[in-house]
Amino acid sequence: MPAFQTVRGMRDLIGEEAQAFTYIIGKARETSSLYGYKEVITPHVEPLELLSAKSGEEIRQRMFIFKDLGERLVALRPEFTASIARLATTSLKNEPKPLRLFSVGTVYRYDEPQRGRYREFWQSNFELMGSTKPEGDAEIVLLTNNLMKSLGLHGYAFKIGHIGIIRGILSQDDVDEKTQNAVLQRMDKKEYDAALKLVESEKCRTMLEGLIGIRGNDWLDTVEQIQSYVASYEKAKAAVENLAEVLRLVTESADLSITVEPAFARGLEYYTGMIFEIYIPGLDIALGGGGRYDKLIEVFGGEPTPGVGCAHGIDRVAIALQTQKTVTNTKTAKKVVVVPITEALKSEALKIAQKLRAEGVTVEFEVMGRKMAKALEDADKRRVDFAVIVGDRELKEGAVVLKELANRQQYTVLIEKLVEKIKS
Amino acid sequence: MPAFQTVRGMRDLIGEEAQAFTYIIGKARETSSLYGYKEVITPHVEPLELLSAKSGEEIRQRMFIFKDLGERLVALRPEFTASIARLATTSLKNEPKPLRLFSVGTVYRYDEPQRGRYREFWQSNFELMGSTKPEGDAEIVLLTNNLMKSLGLHGYAFKIGHIGIIRGILSQDDVDEKTQNAVLQRMDKKEYDAALKLVESEKCRTMLEGLIGIRGNDWLDTVEQIQSYVASYEKAKAAVENLAEVLRLVTESADLSITVEPAFARGLEYYTGMIFEIYIPGLDIALGGGGRYDKLIEVFGGEPTPGVGCAHGIDRVAIALQTQKTVTNTKTAKKVVVVPITEALKSEALKIAQKLRAEGVTVEFEVMGRKMAKALEDADKRRVDFAVIVGDRELKEGAVVLKELANRQQYTVLIEKLVEKIKS
Repeated sequence: MPAFQTVRGMRDLIGEEAQAFTYIIGKARETSSLYGYKEVITPHVEPLELLSAKSGEEIRQRMFIFKDLGERLVALRPEFTASIARLATTSLKNEPKPLRLFSVGTVYRYDEPQRGRYREFWQSNFELMGSTKPEGDAEIVLLTNNLMKSLGLHGYAFKIGHIGIIRGILSQDDVDEKTQNAVLQRMDKKEYDAALKLVESEKCRTMLEGLIGIRGNDWLDTVEQIQSYVASYEKAKAAVENLAEVLRLVTESADLSITVEPAFARGLEYYTGMIFEIYIPGLDIALGGGGRYDKLIEVFGGEPTPGVGCAHGIDRVAIALQTQKTVTNTKTAKKVVVVPITEALKSEALKIAQKLRAEGVTVEFEVMGRKMAKALEDADKRRVDFAVIVGDRELKEGAVVLKELANRQQYTVLIEKLVEKIKS
Repeated sequence: MPAFQTVRGMRDLIGEEAQAFTYIIGKARETSSLYGYKEVITPHVEPLELLSAKSGEEIRQRMFIFKDLGERLVALRPEFTASIARLATTSLKNEPKPLRLFSVGTVYRYDEPQRGRYREFWQSNFELMGSTKPEGDAEIVLLTNNLMKSLGLHGYAFKIGHIGIIRGILSQDDVDEKTQNAVLQRMDKKEYDAALKLVESEKCRTMLEGLIGIRGNDWLDTVEQIQSYVASYEKAKAAVENLAEVLRLVTESADLSITVEPAFARGLEYYTGMIFEIYIPGLDIALGGGGRYDKLIEVFGGEPTPGVGCAHGIDRVAIALQTQKTVTNTKTAKKVVVVPITEALKSEALKIAQKLRAEGVTVEFEVMGRKMAKALEDADKRRVDFAVIVGDRELKEGAVVLKELANRQQYTVLIEKLVEKIKS
């Protein structure tokens, strides 16, 4: 019989890797709580109609689409935002604004697998709905910063832009929305030549070409440069002003490293304002990103509702933690094995195990029926701290033998003192 | 535009319901840690070949099967055990035994949706591999008991049987394995007449019929009754002895309510020994269940490895918690809104918000640009504890106004004393 494999692009996470994932998910949940985001859980499978309502053409082509047994077209979610938008227009329609929602789980895209890019991958997702204000945009950037910091990452930097700059230039030169989307998609992939080829007007092409050359780490300086560059494009100018206000709020209230890039684009078509991504040195894939999407909720049949949100790629954050050798195992609880000396003592030994667990001690019970020496040898291999040996003689006195595996010392300990002794 | 719906049988979980799920998942993870089970994360999508290797015929027909873009047949996992068995035969093949593995996530079955039965549902899953001993079986029952208790449930009871009893009777009367599976499937659904019709030998039919009538809450008494009933069926007798040993260990080491049912069967074909389910009064669907599967790992191409495991239905546990009005919101952290009086003070206010969050305080920043009265009215509605009002005059003194929303009292508080004041 063959050894079975996982589906291409999907992975088993075991040992330290699984531990890193639960660590990251825990930190994301902590961040959601600190910022007042309520957790919601939505299905992994959604109607195709919902998922394709406003995703980019590219994502649509990369979805896992299938028919359920009732012949309905469904797909595995490629992101959370469509599901959250559904909530905002249905069950949560009448909730007071702002609405702050947090989700975490797997999403699916049919990409060519490579390091940091999987067909099933994990995201933590934050959406803030109801606010048009730059402090809304700032909040999403700040919480991403908080999450990265709380994870123990360092040296990370934000790339920030504003989709209104490119759209402002293109629309003033009468480029239709569909072409705008196509241009943005190519710019997202840094296929600048291909992007420029889609623009008919030479003036507009030259404008874009110049914009691509602008970027800088001094946000104020870079924003001023962009402002004078797009001076004759009214909508683009307004976008730059909005971006400047977000950057001011973010930099005045926190210490973060930013590159401003006006020609920066993201693959999803629904962005309307500030967009950002986050990177660490030595890893050329974004750990996360997001932006403003003021028109999205209408598409889903809701009242016009501004929104801004972000997602963090947990698989990539795990790579970043590994790259930076960050410790993700924060547990220090003692581990104990409980071993009965004879068959007849199994129930008594189980009782003691239960007692220890009730006090928060991790107990592995000897379920292999091995002789003492063998059981202890195995416990040693798995870095267990203590063995509790349950024997007739000690039990008569209400006691057991406690063996410290690191130094091979052992003492007789009263059962009622056992937890205290193990924890000390 | 229409309001979009979820896929039939799949649900959005929001508010208290989402909270209950994260609460249950947290308790399951805690239990896994107390019993020394390592968490593993496996894909939601698996090769059909893997999933159909040893699931019951019935589950195979209820799977969400589809082709990926590479034309490979895959399916959404209907349970965790096949994925865990893959791990045990591949990546974890050389790990010392016993192997204790924990997983939590969604699984998928195309059932007719009803209360407690969804097409996407959540499970916590525990597998103990390598032990043939009854203390292994006991551990799985005991940890289920621990989980239910730690969740705050009461009045729950275990239904316990042993698949070896029915199989022992059927095989001694030469019923082939395929028919045995069909009989067990029908008995699982309590379609006893249909089950009996599949058995040709009248003697065997009568045996089974009698077995169906046996059940009892006094485990020792019931086991003795079964023992004398199957006295002439050697394999069935051995099964009863094994069951008795598991029951003895479980009842001697913990206080739990048990019904022994020798004709109890479960839908999955891979069980070979003790099986159980858990119920609360007033809810006729099992909250969870499991059993021994000593032949499963071989099917996946591994060395013969005994195993015993269980899964808990988180959706159903959530219903049980709701039915018993158990409190699942264990958070008592204070909630604060931070509101700048003027536009110009937004950065200063954001800084204060960041400071509070760094100390673990949940802060909702005013991102709607509302006037003070409106912002406070909204905070009141959402049961926020404090408003931190950031104004010019106080800021000059390094202070803010702290307003207790419950009693409308307010004081000027130094920013450096703010956390202390809020937490007190």
